[in-house]
Amino acid sequence: MKLTILGCYAATPRTLTNPTSQVLEIKNRLFLIDCGEGTQVQLRKIKLKFSKINNVFISHLHGDHFFGLIGLISTFALLGRTTDLHIYAPKGVKEIIDLQLRLSNSWTNYQLVFHELESKESEVIFEDDKVIVKTIPLKHRIYTNGFLFQEKVGERRLDFNAVKDYEIETCYFQNIKNGKDITLDDGRIIANDKLSLDPVPALSYAFCSDTKYHEGIIPLIENVSVLYHESTFLQSEETLAQKTMHSTAKEAARIALKANAKQLILGHYSTRYDSIDLFKSEAETIFKEVYLADDGKNFEFNF
Amino acid sequence: MKLTILGCYAATPRTLTNPTSQVLEIKNRLFLIDCGEGTQVQLRKIKLKFSKINNVFISHLHGDHFFGLIGLISTFALLGRTTDLHIYAPKGVKEIIDLQLRLSNSWTNYQLVFHELESKESEVIFEDDKVIVKTIPLKHRIYTNGFLFQEKVGERRLDFNAVKDYEIETCYFQNIKNGKDITLDDGRIIANDKLSLDPVPALSYAFCSDTKYHEGIIPLIENVSVLYHESTFLQSEETLAQKTMHSTAKEAARIALKANAKQLILGHYSTRYDSIDLFKSEAETIFKEVYLADDGKNFEFNF
Repeated sequence: MKLTILGCYAATPRTLTNPTSQVLEIKNRLFLIDCGEGTQVQLRKIKLKFSKINNVFISHLHGDHFFGLIGLISTFALLGRTTDLHIYAPKGVKEIIDLQLRLSNSWTNYQLVFHELESKESEVIFEDDKVIVKTIPLKHRIYTNGFLFQEKVGERRLDFNAVKDYEIETCYFQNIKNGKDITLDDGRIIANDKLSLDPVPALSYAFCSDTKYHEGIIPLIENVSVLYHESTFLQSEETLAQKTMHSTAKEAARIALKANAKQLILGHYSTRYDSIDLFKSEAETIFKEVYLADDGKNFEFNF
Repeated sequence: MKLTILGCYAATPRTLTNPTSQVLEIKNRLFLIDCGEGTQVQLRKIKLKFSKINNVFISHLHGDHFFGLIGLISTFALLGRTTDLHIYAPKGVKEIIDLQLRLSNSWTNYQLVFHELESKESEVIFEDDKVIVKTIPLKHRIYTNGFLFQEKVGERRLDFNAVKDYEIETCYFQNIKNGKDITLDDGRIIANDKLSLDPVPALSYAFCSDTKYHEGIIPLIENVSVLYHESTFLQSEETLAQKTMHSTAKEAARIALKANAKQLILGHYSTRYDSIDLFKSEAETIFKEVYLADDGKNFEFNF
């Protein structure tokens, strides 16, 4: 699982800071999460092949999270894309995109598939054989979802020494991986756990932005491998955070702690502060494993 | 008169090239012309004070000319703007902007004044005591206007030596500047042209993008000081230019020549070519005074 931060600053794009967008790679699938203005340029900077993106998740319809979407959609069309593009976003996104395409007398050669979200309960919005994605309803000034990306637990792994010792034939290997016990020619039954090892642990990633401090999300993200939680402000701007329905670094850390996350990545920083290191320092007073998102930064998750 | 190119490349924003946008300064007024994605960042790069922009002109609703508008409008709101913002753009722009503001539950503290354009004839869309702006109907795949910015001719200038020789009193100076003859105390009438000099010549700037080669614009831009004319392609892509309703560098030069422009600035380049110098070389075979727009470049017009 690999995360690339394209932008992680609040409010507006600036010369050196980009609004929210990130690319998550899980099991060779690429997911684009949020798409602030300039996202397509950031994608070019990291030299990501545009055609590999088939699913775009938009948390909410504030500009710093989706003003780059129409540009990306248009560029895909100009580049001759033919594969379907799935967009998971709050209700209204289709009207916005359709209107702009219509007024510019443009069309896409590929199918735009809108999955408009309006439920206030968590729901599964994407699933294939390796990955499942659920919404995390957040509390912000407008309808907003975070997204929980979960690898599915894989099959058990063969214990090569054991199967060699028991002289088990290759044709039984898949049964062992599927968790079945094996009956030897002499009638002995060998329990599966003597022949196989636990599957590679499934990783998970929770993207939570934008939101005020909201403990309601904890059951949904419990034991998550990596939590990205917005921290627009420091403690000194706590009142502003409450007013604008954003979180402070400490609040993000408190959610990570209560949800028993392995790691916390902070982002969505206000640009009012001298250094983003301040967010880390504040969060670390509550939670140990704190990392800072920054534009262009990569995270590889290995536990 | 000063022109700053924020972006001048066709189709999509890339790592090093920006879509169309430029700032024209005439008589201390700032006009923003087109607003492709990323324009607000380009404005920050040139350190232009956002609040000085009160009038935005959008040629047409293709993405590379207006996808940055909603972001700019939102940023103005975040920065606490209170002055009216006038937007001159094809019909439909209000619906696009209003919809996005409504769905993001955002509003502007300032008044957004839309001047939606739909006439196929040239019309005056802005006028104050110093400057007049007219549309230049262009021929492109969708409804498109260029814009002609004209300084108004100022008053005549006093010939200080002459008024001294004739011992004319200060109270008559304004009459002389207004072109009136003066009657001396002894009854002699002194013709105005003996007391004053011609006004400073009025400059003009014509922005023509996007358009196919279209001689119909020539009467509208005749004798213009500076013509910015799109040249998306070189001669080798003439067929493509016709198909997409764009111009070649030679066609831009031909318009400049026929309109008797003083200078021609080329822009809206396709990124398929190795060097934009090729556009200059081709245009110069037809018209002498050719300049190349490039992102971040300034032009000062002095004749």
